[in-house]
Amino acid sequence: MEKERASLQAWKDRVAKELDSVVAFWLQHSHDQEHGGFFTCLARNGQVYDDLKYIWLQGRQVWMYCRLYRNFERFRRAELLDAAKAGGEFLLRFARVAPPAKKCAFVLTRDGRPVKVQRTIFSECFYTIAMNELWRVTKESRYQNEAVEMMDQIVHWVREDPAGLGRPQLSGTPDAESMAVPMMLMNLVDQLSEEDEALTKKYAELWDWCAQRILQHVQRDGKAILENVSHDGKELTGCLGRHQNPGHAIEAGWFLLQYARKKGDAKLRAHIIDKFLLLPFRSGWDAEHGGLFYFQDVDGFCPTQLEWDMKLWWPHNEAMISFLMGYRDSGDPALLQIFNQVAEYTFKHFHDPENGEWFGYLNREGKVALNFKGGPFKGCFHVPRCLAMCEKMLGDLLHRGSAPAGSK
Amino acid sequence: MEKERASLQAWKDRVAKELDSVVAFWLQHSHDQEHGGFFTCLARNGQVYDDLKYIWLQGRQVWMYCRLYRNFERFRRAELLDAAKAGGEFLLRFARVAPPAKKCAFVLTRDGRPVKVQRTIFSECFYTIAMNELWRVTKESRYQNEAVEMMDQIVHWVREDPAGLGRPQLSGTPDAESMAVPMMLMNLVDQLSEEDEALTKKYAELWDWCAQRILQHVQRDGKAILENVSHDGKELTGCLGRHQNPGHAIEAGWFLLQYARKKGDAKLRAHIIDKFLLLPFRSGWDAEHGGLFYFQDVDGFCPTQLEWDMKLWWPHNEAMISFLMGYRDSGDPALLQIFNQVAEYTFKHFHDPENGEWFGYLNREGKVALNFKGGPFKGCFHVPRCLAMCEKMLGDLLHRGSAPAGSK
Repeated sequence: MEKERASLQAWKDRVAKELDSVVAFWLQHSHDQEHGGFFTCLARNGQVYDDLKYIWLQGRQVWMYCRLYRNFERFRRAELLDAAKAGGEFLLRFARVAPPAKKCAFVLTRDGRPVKVQRTIFSECFYTIAMNELWRVTKESRYQNEAVEMMDQIVHWVREDPAGLGRPQLSGTPDAESMAVPMMLMNLVDQLSEEDEALTKKYAELWDWCAQRILQHVQRDGKAILENVSHDGKELTGCLGRHQNPGHAIEAGWFLLQYARKKGDAKLRAHIIDKFLLLPFRSGWDAEHGGLFYFQDVDGFCPTQLEWDMKLWWPHNEAMISFLMGYRDSGDPALLQIFNQVAEYTFKHFHDPENGEWFGYLNREGKVALNFKGGPFKGCFHVPRCLAMCEKMLGDLLHRGSAPAGSK
Repeated sequence: MEKERASLQAWKDRVAKELDSVVAFWLQHSHDQEHGGFFTCLARNGQVYDDLKYIWLQGRQVWMYCRLYRNFERFRRAELLDAAKAGGEFLLRFARVAPPAKKCAFVLTRDGRPVKVQRTIFSECFYTIAMNELWRVTKESRYQNEAVEMMDQIVHWVREDPAGLGRPQLSGTPDAESMAVPMMLMNLVDQLSEEDEALTKKYAELWDWCAQRILQHVQRDGKAILENVSHDGKELTGCLGRHQNPGHAIEAGWFLLQYARKKGDAKLRAHIIDKFLLLPFRSGWDAEHGGLFYFQDVDGFCPTQLEWDMKLWWPHNEAMISFLMGYRDSGDPALLQIFNQVAEYTFKHFHDPENGEWFGYLNREGKVALNFKGGPFKGCFHVPRCLAMCEKMLGDLLHRGSAPAGSK
């Protein structure tokens, strides 16, 4: 037990130190002092190689800075808050393509002109978590109004009428639900409901709906998570139906663990650990070279995505969170062992000891394939979120001593 | 010289044998006897792993079968013609999303219902070459009418009004021309003008326009081909502006060599060989592992496309065509040497000796990363087109003996 404590303490120190270093990287290189918002296309050494502003990453960085500011004494610094507010103002002014309509762009020029729009809900979702978190740190209600109104719009698109997203209705389009949609909504409910009784109540039914919808991606008699199923939970044909994304399933795992914890449902927790943590980890971990594959085909065909066998940073971040949370909530030492395995691989391969922050994209063998620190999809989000959550969880585990909650 | 002849003869034999084997693979595995058209998602052994029908690949296979039928005695077989006609009928019935409007789908279900539409011209372009080629083998004018009408629509979208493509006009969207657009149009002009005086005349100005537009992708004082430039030939900012696709530049090379040949312009030919063959080959060939990189950044930043360092089959097919054509037209033995280098790499790494046809996607080191023979973007096109063109060119070179045209 002492050995386990020492290991948890060592990880806590390592993770906290790494969080400091990662935050320092973004503080140093990513702030656009002229227009507000963040540069996220940062080369290995932090150099800006493109000044486009991807809304997902703008929203996520605002959220991340506020979270750190709120939850960590050592990050309660004006530097973070001011940058988050400038990012929030940039979003308020420019994110929506044709205000007052709520549809947001996918990417803007540095000075805020729309370049591309995606016909999905995700830009709007990251806008929402940014606004809610800004409200929590500033107490300015205009941010919260934005968050709640955008949330209403998103829920309308998902559950009532997607017409506003602009996707054409075609007779051959499959009735497919990507697991990303209920996952994202559950994430929004968690965010908006935190210590907010009125919104907890408002979103209670939605919260259950999200859980049920995510859970129906467990298919094939419980033997596989499929990324896309029909809206009523049936397997779809072809590559789309057979598509698997182990890191995404494992991320859904910790979203659901939080749900089960709040519900106090130990049976559900066991189901989640079995289906959303262990199952995708076992199928997705590369026995030959280590690391999680990006995509798989449940029947063993070769995926058609060119990057299927690459090792991306974020599935490893999500796996660190999930297995540590699974251990915290269940006390099962096998989950701590997997956390150790994933975290060792992750720190060894993704961390850049020379310039700080992490590489995002390794080839199957674990060699860096793309050496930038930020790009159109990698910003100040998965790495610091993982490190911050792991630091907190490791602290909780060390604090409560040798008796994990689930072992009682 | 005898040694060179022997080498050309050996390549001709090897290429012809490979063409037979590749065509046999598609004849055996890809025909949908029930609905017409082709399965293109074929696993390593030819098994159909998805029955979606991608319009690019439907049109290309119709075109390829007709070309082979027209130009090679040994492929003048009912089996090819019947499958091409069934593919053509499938396209006529189902390719257009909302007839009589000409916009075509990107992908259909097996029985022809639209799944996705792209807001580009390419589905329509491959539809056009299929119809024109069907007309050439069958003499049925309804095919040619389709081809010419669709061509008029495409030219209208490109040169007059792109509104029909459905792309939203956004204030931040860069004024970018992808080299693919004038390349594709030049390819269509070549196809439709073949032995057709009226259409040669009709498209003469367009043909010159295409050449001029492709040529303005030569940037940085002639030191680089950039994949995207402004419509008036200026370099664009950011990743978009710095993006390079060596295989695509080399493919443009043989399109332009055909143009220079028909124009009888030796000075232009030399320019093309220098800028579109040698320049991208020198920057794009991986000195460490061999093979052409898929994408590069002209300033040496890491591209943001995850597949940037992979070796794809088609750039190697295009390079085989271009360097052999460059040699045929100029007589420069250095180009034959590069043809040999590329062809050796290509046959060694992409060819599947066990099941026939070629792998499409290798990792940087040249190991097969995706083991299927066909997918959403790989069909019966680049491999057989390359082999058929090389067989013909090698035959011409052997036939004319030891005095290449350009050496006079």
